[in-house]
Amino acid sequence: MIPGQIDPPARLLMGPGPINADPRVLRAMSAQLVGQYDPAMTGYMAETQELFRGVFQTNNDATLVIDGTGRAGIEAALVSLLAPGDRVLVPIFGRFGDLLKEIAARCGAEVHVIEREWGTVFTPAEIDAALAEVKPKVLAIVHGDTSATVAQPLDDLGGIADKHGALLYADVTASLGGNTFLADAWGVDAATAGLQKCLAGPAGSSPITLSDRAAQVINAREGAGADIRSNYFDLAQILDYWGPKRLNHHTEATTMLYGARECARILVEETMEKAVERHRIHGAAMTAGLVGMGLQLFGDQSVRMNNVIGVYIPDGLDGEAARATLLADYGIEIGTSFGPLAGKVWRIGVMGYNARRDAVLTTLAALEQLLRRGGVAVKQGAGTDAAFESYAAG
Amino acid sequence: MIPGQIDPPARLLMGPGPINADPRVLRAMSAQLVGQYDPAMTGYMAETQELFRGVFQTNNDATLVIDGTGRAGIEAALVSLLAPGDRVLVPIFGRFGDLLKEIAARCGAEVHVIEREWGTVFTPAEIDAALAEVKPKVLAIVHGDTSATVAQPLDDLGGIADKHGALLYADVTASLGGNTFLADAWGVDAATAGLQKCLAGPAGSSPITLSDRAAQVINAREGAGADIRSNYFDLAQILDYWGPKRLNHHTEATTMLYGARECARILVEETMEKAVERHRIHGAAMTAGLVGMGLQLFGDQSVRMNNVIGVYIPDGLDGEAARATLLADYGIEIGTSFGPLAGKVWRIGVMGYNARRDAVLTTLAALEQLLRRGGVAVKQGAGTDAAFESYAAG
Repeated sequence: MIPGQIDPPARLLMGPGPINADPRVLRAMSAQLVGQYDPAMTGYMAETQELFRGVFQTNNDATLVIDGTGRAGIEAALVSLLAPGDRVLVPIFGRFGDLLKEIAARCGAEVHVIEREWGTVFTPAEIDAALAEVKPKVLAIVHGDTSATVAQPLDDLGGIADKHGALLYADVTASLGGNTFLADAWGVDAATAGLQKCLAGPAGSSPITLSDRAAQVINAREGAGADIRSNYFDLAQILDYWGPKRLNHHTEATTMLYGARECARILVEETMEKAVERHRIHGAAMTAGLVGMGLQLFGDQSVRMNNVIGVYIPDGLDGEAARATLLADYGIEIGTSFGPLAGKVWRIGVMGYNARRDAVLTTLAALEQLLRRGGVAVKQGAGTDAAFESYAAG
Repeated sequence: MIPGQIDPPARLLMGPGPINADPRVLRAMSAQLVGQYDPAMTGYMAETQELFRGVFQTNNDATLVIDGTGRAGIEAALVSLLAPGDRVLVPIFGRFGDLLKEIAARCGAEVHVIEREWGTVFTPAEIDAALAEVKPKVLAIVHGDTSATVAQPLDDLGGIADKHGALLYADVTASLGGNTFLADAWGVDAATAGLQKCLAGPAGSSPITLSDRAAQVINAREGAGADIRSNYFDLAQILDYWGPKRLNHHTEATTMLYGARECARILVEETMEKAVERHRIHGAAMTAGLVGMGLQLFGDQSVRMNNVIGVYIPDGLDGEAARATLLADYGIEIGTSFGPLAGKVWRIGVMGYNARRDAVLTTLAALEQLLRRGGVAVKQGAGTDAAFESYAAG
């Protein structure tokens, strides 16, 4: 029995990602392939690099995409920067901090961590003090950690890391495009992302940018004879593939490249400033709507990601059953939580193609019905009214 | 200056891969996304697993796709099977054997190799003797090595590896779908592939299958505390994500999954037997056409891959200039060569969506004009006539 063609149900994906892809991205991905060294292909590769320089707000020559999901980009950065025995400091304020720790350990690095309660972030002084103590080669930190819904301010960290002789790596998978990120102005040495959040594409391609300094550290390892513990993620080799030498590495994932290029093109056309502002506006409207319905927000709102909102599940409601009902009856997906928030908090995403007024208002309208039928008292229209007010306030 | 939309030139890709994607695959990939744990998504994942069991000709429960190119699948298999210090034997008869060697070394394995001249393959006795001497944990070998255009017969190797207590890993990236491959019947413990060859899709997803024995070896490493040198390629974790536990690992590359599923669906609909026969027939017609034009074949024809043909560049012709002309004037891409064959041999692919009569005849017709205008004497129609004869012979 051979299954039928791909024919997914209509879904409005308002969780922490993946979210609906922008139809423009899917159209770009439906284009036919060309050869790996076809002038058209190497041209698309060069354009993709330049477009992502705009997205990362950088002049870094070493800007490209890794053929894998956001996690692949993280591993490429860490395995290429960290030699076995190198010290790395990982400040952890959510689940993806734990991931950085785990990946760094598998690179053979000596991993030091500092931890904060989920929903809070570190002060620059805390990180400064930890750097002074650990003296790591790399400070590796998540920007926006969707598991905890907050974003660690990074603007001071480049300078602080530099003072201690450390390179700054930032995982911006969940934040890029929806929250201000300035690779060069902030002195970030390496950053990696994914397409499936604010970039409005499918998972499977990981944009990365490396400062000249970071690229030098990586290239210096190339001669040393494969001490980078991966071939697929060996950025020294990958830079030679994307660079003028065009040395063969993997076969570029052409369709994902087409998609990544279109994701970047959409953002650069909009401008990064306006894209971030769009995420702020629609995230604020969703937040206002949730509060308007009487729900309680999770986490330090002063550092909340524009694109992910944590909200406590109302007492007496089975959060997972309610999520399943919302999906089955309204076709709307919101997110569950992990770790200390499991069973307590829903995570609602407003990002990428779905950072739109209709997506916000439809979700709030459906949530009102979901809560009411679940026995939670909600004033009629309180959610959407609050969202409209938020939109009016700008 | 923002570049325009993706709008690739029309190309007929008759090199060693990537080749043109089947339009059905591109259409499947244009479908909108669903959430990672949406019942529709987990349903597609399960269907994809079952379809690839058909493609690999296996009942292996542990059959899934890795989110990366063919090289990602190789690394996932080797890094998950090989602990630092483990011995591995890599018989090398082309460039991708060197890749297995390099990846295994980066896993920290003790790598032993035996080598043969490109264009030839090993006898079972040679591999048997090397296994007896090295006593490795894993025998890692390429099936069809496109760089050398030949396929190592694997049918005896499972039994031989087993006799020496070794697991058999086969890289079938370039062969699967176009050459007989029977994972279970041949006793192959692990095999990995890519979409961009006979599977008629774009690079970016790597199908993999693991015997129960291989899965046990990998799962036994999970408890040992992250001695697998990668998180992204940790098959123990990835099996828990694809398995009934559905433990979160990476965010599945949904669009690539849609594509991989359609690639497998096309082959399973056709049946693997007929797909291999199709590659044999069109590969034979192309080969006959090349010989008919007076060109000399490279490599041991008794073990030639059905889907890649090596042919010596005629004397007096600049092979790279001719390839560029063929691309620019006819929109047809054929392949260059590497290593010992660089500058001497073209590689012509007949595979996947392009294993078709019109693709073969068009390529031969264009090649005749290319050679003639390049000063190589070719009898008018000799190539296509020979191909027609080959088709008539079946």
